[in-house]
Amino acid sequence: MRKDLTIVKVGGKVVEEPESLARLIKDFSSIKGPKILVHGGGRSATAMATRLGIETKMVDGRRITDGAMLEVVTMVYAGLVNKNIVAGLQAHGQNALGMTGADMNIIKSHKRVKGDVDYGFVGDIDAVNHQDLSRLVLQDAVPVIAPLTHDGQGQMLNTNADTMASAVAAALSNEFKVTLVFCFEKKGVLSDPNDEESVISKITPDDFARLKAEKVITEGMIPKLDNGFDALNKGVFQIRITNPEGINTEDNSGTILLNT
Amino acid sequence: MRKDLTIVKVGGKVVEEPESLARLIKDFSSIKGPKILVHGGGRSATAMATRLGIETKMVDGRRITDGAMLEVVTMVYAGLVNKNIVAGLQAHGQNALGMTGADMNIIKSHKRVKGDVDYGFVGDIDAVNHQDLSRLVLQDAVPVIAPLTHDGQGQMLNTNADTMASAVAAALSNEFKVTLVFCFEKKGVLSDPNDEESVISKITPDDFARLKAEKVITEGMIPKLDNGFDALNKGVFQIRITNPEGINTEDNSGTILLNT
Repeated sequence: MRKDLTIVKVGGKVVEEPESLARLIKDFSSIKGPKILVHGGGRSATAMATRLGIETKMVDGRRITDGAMLEVVTMVYAGLVNKNIVAGLQAHGQNALGMTGADMNIIKSHKRVKGDVDYGFVGDIDAVNHQDLSRLVLQDAVPVIAPLTHDGQGQMLNTNADTMASAVAAALSNEFKVTLVFCFEKKGVLSDPNDEESVISKITPDDFARLKAEKVITEGMIPKLDNGFDALNKGVFQIRITNPEGINTEDNSGTILLNT
Repeated sequence: MRKDLTIVKVGGKVVEEPESLARLIKDFSSIKGPKILVHGGGRSATAMATRLGIETKMVDGRRITDGAMLEVVTMVYAGLVNKNIVAGLQAHGQNALGMTGADMNIIKSHKRVKGDVDYGFVGDIDAVNHQDLSRLVLQDAVPVIAPLTHDGQGQMLNTNADTMASAVAAALSNEFKVTLVFCFEKKGVLSDPNDEESVISKITPDDFARLKAEKVITEGMIPKLDNGFDALNKGVFQIRITNPEGINTEDNSGTILLNT
């Protein structure tokens, strides 16, 4: 029987405001068994870039990463945000280990091929080193993964945290029964964006198509669900979308994605 | 019989200029067997602080670390410098794993007690988690340690890299025959600072006392040698002071510290 493994991807304000970060750390620490945290940090990177006089350029919600911006995201994601979370988890007795894709070569990628847009130093994932990740979590380490990968030739690459979480979840699904939790500010996917309580409890691919057609699900939520359904198709046991209060897998709150 | 373990501490320009860093990475990669790299990054931190309009204050060569400076050193040491080294080592087939003292709780410290000087968020080391470090190196991981520790209560602390390297070397000496290499710009301790070739090949505690009295060894070199002799007294097999070209332990070049 496969062991349970919980992977939580957390981004947005949750990870960047001291109060909500403290709450997240507490709730994540309460999850039993092997677990991995994948975090973002885009707001902090944008704020640091501004302080350094570096302009932030986004296309379709994705950051253009030139050399100067790569320095900023490497500092902010792998340094500031990652170590804040690691030190916080250690204070809760969690054996947290901060990592990027370069550390132990856990996630290798290639620089995105230029299309209509040149995203710069952005990585598209090629391989997840599930052997070392599996060994770490079975030795009670808690990997805390920053949204950076490497190309194996010495180049760090900025990489989408949702995509990294999905890829890690899929790669570990042979060995583990993986629950992947996308954690953000809302209680789940809302049927009415103005009503915090209007959480849709379950979404199948058919529901997703309908909700997109009805414009209930729009913009930033679409790639998140695409990533989620993709992970489900690759053997991940369950995908849940919720806020920090809902991340403990025993609660099962938020929106659950189902294959059928 | 204890297995060999090489710990290299590298700082100064060596780690912060692309050309010398590339050389270091190549030479460090050529060291056989279990190994650990401990790095500094002070020049980069000072440069980043200046860009952010944060004033760098030093007392006796030690950085005063207020909250704003702690953010800078956390970003620069654990983010920029550490990940550059990790990605570079990975490109040489080394299973590098970037860490601070907080990661896997490998080095715990307490905030330095205020004396005449308030150093701020600076850590004095209490404990090295030699069990996890030993397990990592025996599993062929290469820890790359940034000069930061934590207090176990969620606080990151700026910590001297020489001291961290000595503490790690001492803590692992029960299990390993440890060679500790302090790597910097010079070929070793020089008897004539103006003659790069005037390397003193061996220094005993008696020699050290004499060389200090004769003002041959001064300033920044004194705490380095103090750290070195301290580590020797705690069971470290050999201490060597050299430049990147001399770090491969088979060459045995540079200055060697001896107990008698």
